[in-house]
Amino acid sequence: MRIAIALFNLGGPDGPDAVEPFLFNLFSDPAIIRVPGFLRRFLARTISRRRAPKARGIYARIGGGSPLLPNTLAQTHALEERLRDLGEVRAFPVMRYWHPMTPEAVRDIAQFAPDRIVLLPLYPQFSTTTTASSLDAWREEAARAGLAAPMRTLCCYPVQPGFIEALAALVRDGVEAARAKGRPRILFSAHGLPEKVVKAGDPYQWQVEQTAAAAMRVLGDIGADHVVCYQSRVGPLKWIGPSTEDEIARAGKDGVPVVVVPLAFVSEHSETLVELDIEYAELAHEAGVPAYVRVPTVSTHPAFIDGLATLARAALARDTADPLPDGERRICAPGWSGCPCRGPGKAA
Amino acid sequence: MRIAIALFNLGGPDGPDAVEPFLFNLFSDPAIIRVPGFLRRFLARTISRRRAPKARGIYARIGGGSPLLPNTLAQTHALEERLRDLGEVRAFPVMRYWHPMTPEAVRDIAQFAPDRIVLLPLYPQFSTTTTASSLDAWREEAARAGLAAPMRTLCCYPVQPGFIEALAALVRDGVEAARAKGRPRILFSAHGLPEKVVKAGDPYQWQVEQTAAAAMRVLGDIGADHVVCYQSRVGPLKWIGPSTEDEIARAGKDGVPVVVVPLAFVSEHSETLVELDIEYAELAHEAGVPAYVRVPTVSTHPAFIDGLATLARAALARDTADPLPDGERRICAPGWSGCPCRGPGKAA
Repeated sequence: MRIAIALFNLGGPDGPDAVEPFLFNLFSDPAIIRVPGFLRRFLARTISRRRAPKARGIYARIGGGSPLLPNTLAQTHALEERLRDLGEVRAFPVMRYWHPMTPEAVRDIAQFAPDRIVLLPLYPQFSTTTTASSLDAWREEAARAGLAAPMRTLCCYPVQPGFIEALAALVRDGVEAARAKGRPRILFSAHGLPEKVVKAGDPYQWQVEQTAAAAMRVLGDIGADHVVCYQSRVGPLKWIGPSTEDEIARAGKDGVPVVVVPLAFVSEHSETLVELDIEYAELAHEAGVPAYVRVPTVSTHPAFIDGLATLARAALARDTADPLPDGERRICAPGWSGCPCRGPGKAA
Repeated sequence: MRIAIALFNLGGPDGPDAVEPFLFNLFSDPAIIRVPGFLRRFLARTISRRRAPKARGIYARIGGGSPLLPNTLAQTHALEERLRDLGEVRAFPVMRYWHPMTPEAVRDIAQFAPDRIVLLPLYPQFSTTTTASSLDAWREEAARAGLAAPMRTLCCYPVQPGFIEALAALVRDGVEAARAKGRPRILFSAHGLPEKVVKAGDPYQWQVEQTAAAAMRVLGDIGADHVVCYQSRVGPLKWIGPSTEDEIARAGKDGVPVVVVPLAFVSEHSETLVELDIEYAELAHEAGVPAYVRVPTVSTHPAFIDGLATLARAALARDTADPLPDGERRICAPGWSGCPCRGPGKAA
């Protein structure tokens, strides 16, 4: 049996020249800027042009481009490895805003001619702005290309045991590293969202909180406080909080070391390598935080890859699921009852 | 006090066009090809031209270029963060074969005008082909630039506790992931070397074995066998062994799962992302190895970064050391008595 696994992620510019077109693609997404098409393209052009110089400066601090594609390819290879016993398994990165983008990935997958396709977002927590945007783009392109193999979608896996185990292991080491400077405070820091997106029913914030709670259950009495907070705010809208910046300031006032845990990214992005490692570290220093430890993303941690493999196996094993208009079959993460894709039409 | 920390590594091409010049730089290094200068440049040109198409194909599988620079920059930022209490601390990547290369890094460091400089190779195990080559290039350029701040060199740290703790934590998770398929065999896989380099006194192989032994001491009775082996052989010379390929074949014959641990790289290279994750995984499959788990490199694991910070602190705290001709001060990793830089002139 030939199995294709589509691993969805944002994508990131691979060099200075890619920054502006990457931003244009990002701000052209109706899931990101929610205005009519003609206005969105105008806004995307304006915003990407205006933001490009600063963004190029940000990427210059990590060598000019994003390491997201190599990191994601490492995940595809590790996952293929774990699923070899199922037959000819190939995992494909499918990026939303930079290459290999959805049309290229769909073409490659069609050429591979799989018997089954598993759609596996590299977003543990479901959001309309990430997961649904990627799956929508996929659906459109797959239909256009006439990709007909049965598909199963993993919508989200905020408390998947392998994911949580990997996260907890990394947090534990981070707490140990910070403990010399006092009782650490764990800041579970996720990419934020405009408040109105959450109010409209996006389950992201709730799922992020479930992830943090599951990690803390595994960690048990680790001798550290914890809080969930949100980073990366841009634009004029009110975002969900508390903000990671505010939590850093509070830790400074309280004089406690912080352990910053990116729990919604599963590989390194500019948001971890620049925002957390440089900008927020600087903030922490200015705020008098006695130690600032940033925990790596789960990346190719064996427990995390095992978790992804378990999800893919579950998706492939399950042949009955709610029938959906496009014949696509979905499955929720095992043990996960609050999945938004259960509800009719709400998720995607 | 202004402190500069120079973090040495190989460097890797940042895109397809960089592959051939990167190879040319690599094969031009007298530490790599040990023949007279005029012949070496000729050989470097010939070899790099001949190998470039294949190498471009290798890098294409991880997105076109190496993620080494972004990974290294993440390490510099994490390390700066851990050393903030010492004053104005900046860490600089100093790459041997691709940008930012030694002359650029020396220029940047001179501009920073540090009071102290710590030379910290991102090679835990000392080799004439890596550490000494980097330090030689550094010395030459630093002298040319008149960089006069007191310098301390960390020559190697094969059993540094933080490094070993990070490695052991990752191995433990890898063994857990493989255990379902039988009693795992841990393959500690290091980049190989020609046998004659080791016979000429290079301590690399011995130090690699020390690293593996230290990790196994921390892991205790983990229910897995282990072996040290060597990957990445190229060229006509006899290399040290056993080779990782042979060990994979043996695991196939014995029907045991393998856990592959890159213990001489501290960040992801083509040798981990392509050779281990794709090529050797394929070998393992063909050899009938029931499970193949590759453990990530220590990268920005908090225990590893803590270890680097401890080394830097020790180097800075120690003002008396063997006086050396160039006024440079050296220090061996604490607790490490077999350091080659103790011997007169042997190491560098």
